[in-house]
Amino acid sequence: MLETTIATIRPLDEPAMTAARDLQARLTKPAGSLGALEELSVRLAGLAGACPPPLPEPAAVAIFAGDHGVHAQGVTPWPQEVTAQMIANFLAGGAVVNAFARQAGASVTVVDVGVATPLPVDPDAVSGVGGAGGVGGAGGVGGARRAGGSRLVDANVRRGTRDMTVTSALTRDEARAAVETGIRIAGELVDGGAGILLTGDMGIGNTTPSAALVAALTGTDPAEVTGRGTGVDDETYQRKVGVVRTALGRHRPDPADPLGVLAAVGGLEHAALAGLILGAAARRVPVLLDGVIAASAGLVAAALAPDAVGAMVAGHRSAEPGATVALRHLGLDPLIDLGLRLGEGTGALLALPVVTGAVRVLHEVATFDSAGVSEK
Amino acid sequence: MLETTIATIRPLDEPAMTAARDLQARLTKPAGSLGALEELSVRLAGLAGACPPPLPEPAAVAIFAGDHGVHAQGVTPWPQEVTAQMIANFLAGGAVVNAFARQAGASVTVVDVGVATPLPVDPDAVSGVGGAGGVGGAGGVGGARRAGGSRLVDANVRRGTRDMTVTSALTRDEARAAVETGIRIAGELVDGGAGILLTGDMGIGNTTPSAALVAALTGTDPAEVTGRGTGVDDETYQRKVGVVRTALGRHRPDPADPLGVLAAVGGLEHAALAGLILGAAARRVPVLLDGVIAASAGLVAAALAPDAVGAMVAGHRSAEPGATVALRHLGLDPLIDLGLRLGEGTGALLALPVVTGAVRVLHEVATFDSAGVSEK
Repeated sequence: MLETTIATIRPLDEPAMTAARDLQARLTKPAGSLGALEELSVRLAGLAGACPPPLPEPAAVAIFAGDHGVHAQGVTPWPQEVTAQMIANFLAGGAVVNAFARQAGASVTVVDVGVATPLPVDPDAVSGVGGAGGVGGAGGVGGARRAGGSRLVDANVRRGTRDMTVTSALTRDEARAAVETGIRIAGELVDGGAGILLTGDMGIGNTTPSAALVAALTGTDPAEVTGRGTGVDDETYQRKVGVVRTALGRHRPDPADPLGVLAAVGGLEHAALAGLILGAAARRVPVLLDGVIAASAGLVAAALAPDAVGAMVAGHRSAEPGATVALRHLGLDPLIDLGLRLGEGTGALLALPVVTGAVRVLHEVATFDSAGVSEK
Repeated sequence: MLETTIATIRPLDEPAMTAARDLQARLTKPAGSLGALEELSVRLAGLAGACPPPLPEPAAVAIFAGDHGVHAQGVTPWPQEVTAQMIANFLAGGAVVNAFARQAGASVTVVDVGVATPLPVDPDAVSGVGGAGGVGGAGGVGGARRAGGSRLVDANVRRGTRDMTVTSALTRDEARAAVETGIRIAGELVDGGAGILLTGDMGIGNTTPSAALVAALTGTDPAEVTGRGTGVDDETYQRKVGVVRTALGRHRPDPADPLGVLAAVGGLEHAALAGLILGAAARRVPVLLDGVIAASAGLVAAALAPDAVGAMVAGHRSAEPGATVALRHLGLDPLIDLGLRLGEGTGALLALPVVTGAVRVLHEVATFDSAGVSEK
């Protein structure tokens, strides 16, 4: 499945991009006055192979949740149980991602791809991959059993990764299984009608494997890509940099072998997000990246299929330094920069109206000719 | 009316701000992880005097349109008729501001406060100030006669300003009349139910008086605040800087006399926008600033009533350098920075979901306690 998906991913369509550039020049506004939105609209035309490309609606957020063996190294002050507790919060509709999704009319799908502790949720509310149903309508309800919440997909590959400072976080087969879960979720969401996918994540400790992935795949020193995550003190921060350095020194992952990098120092949610991105790119649907977890998964996806970058839109500039390094490597500029460091998909959701607006301009704005407006 | 409005404007409410900070700390997210949205939510609580403050819905864009005598100095390659032609485009729903307003569910009200040339529109579609009716529902329709378009209010103070390099752009009475028009429009929109006002503008040549206002009110050299507007060449740019310098040298406006500054080097849309801001602040409704025209009007409003800054939210960082100088002077950080230089209210509309999201968090997100999530 992974190889088939990769083989499907093609470059952006040049004629559609040329048509979008030509149309932008005829719309009733000074040339270039929509700044970054103009080139974004051109890329999305290239992805769709049509000008104008379809409006990116409805939007579907996929939150992949996993735990991390490296939590044992004291890289975060939060207890591991919070991953499972936050899933319950997502399902009840009480997290920030739910509030933003309701506002944006986006559905929220939570995928347990590797949570370590039992989920404090009604098992009746859980569906497996393949039985997930459609995307759902406005209000972020999706297939949820609770009003305003999200639906849960059980696709647990293993109950958390192993400690990457001691051994490989995952086997190669586990990494592949998580990537293929992401591909499958992308396919289901697109089949259900989604016009854009948004990355979300939940996993206490997951900025540590993100930093390791970014360091390994961009050849950057751990100190430059490791951040303070949800807010660690100086001592924990130094330990975190050391943990990333130790893991990379132990495994010496080969950036030319992305599955090997994932297995050595990745997380199950990172692997699944890489799959989601590949699945979106294969279906030629845009995927809006949230923060550093998504950006590091984007590096994995791009290493597997370079043309997958054409489907990626960077939602926001995370406060994590690794996100900026990863986005620069991918050649992506984030749409918003508000100092967010929450994850969950919140930064992607805040950027969504910018993406929709960029496409809407190509659909709805009059040309100088049609509106009878003089040119300079 | 101006004096009464100014007297009504009070500082932000400290107890409501404290309540909002306390609530932010108890929500299910790491402290501070929503970055700029957290302080924004605190300011809006202070403006409303309540925690949570009301959701800023529905949104109403007010586009003030005017022409400029300084157009005769060759500061822009666009013919002056484009101001009136673009008004027809707004009314027909064909401009970028219309597309973004439809997406945001915002109404659009176009106010002719000083257009020089005849409006190519059906006179039946025009209402005067006071007979404008309500804000209208979603879809940006307002009181429009055309589907998806905007309504027009005739409040023309004079058919364009005078050339500020030769004489004062406005009399003091004309400047006051335009400010009071803005106050009146703010009152009508708030009475009609608007929960937030967004500034819009249309006026060929209006970045030139904006630069003059910013230079005069912040004591900055014209070369530092004059930009390329809709895209002028090097020769026109140099002429534009010279025009601003000449006008300021001729009038030497006193920054302690904001109406005098407006009369000397302002525009009718700048004056009306200053009034809109004052009217919003008096009604304790937030006003989302678009680009450099709004930022320069914000300086006028703040000079008249320093506490009016509490109602201002900077939507985006315009490509015009004067906008950055003005926002820094006001102590405001823009929410988005996408290289836009279109005006019309487009940057404010793109930022609107961020403002709404910031407030929505206070309404909808669960606390650690209520959701049963462990703290660190």
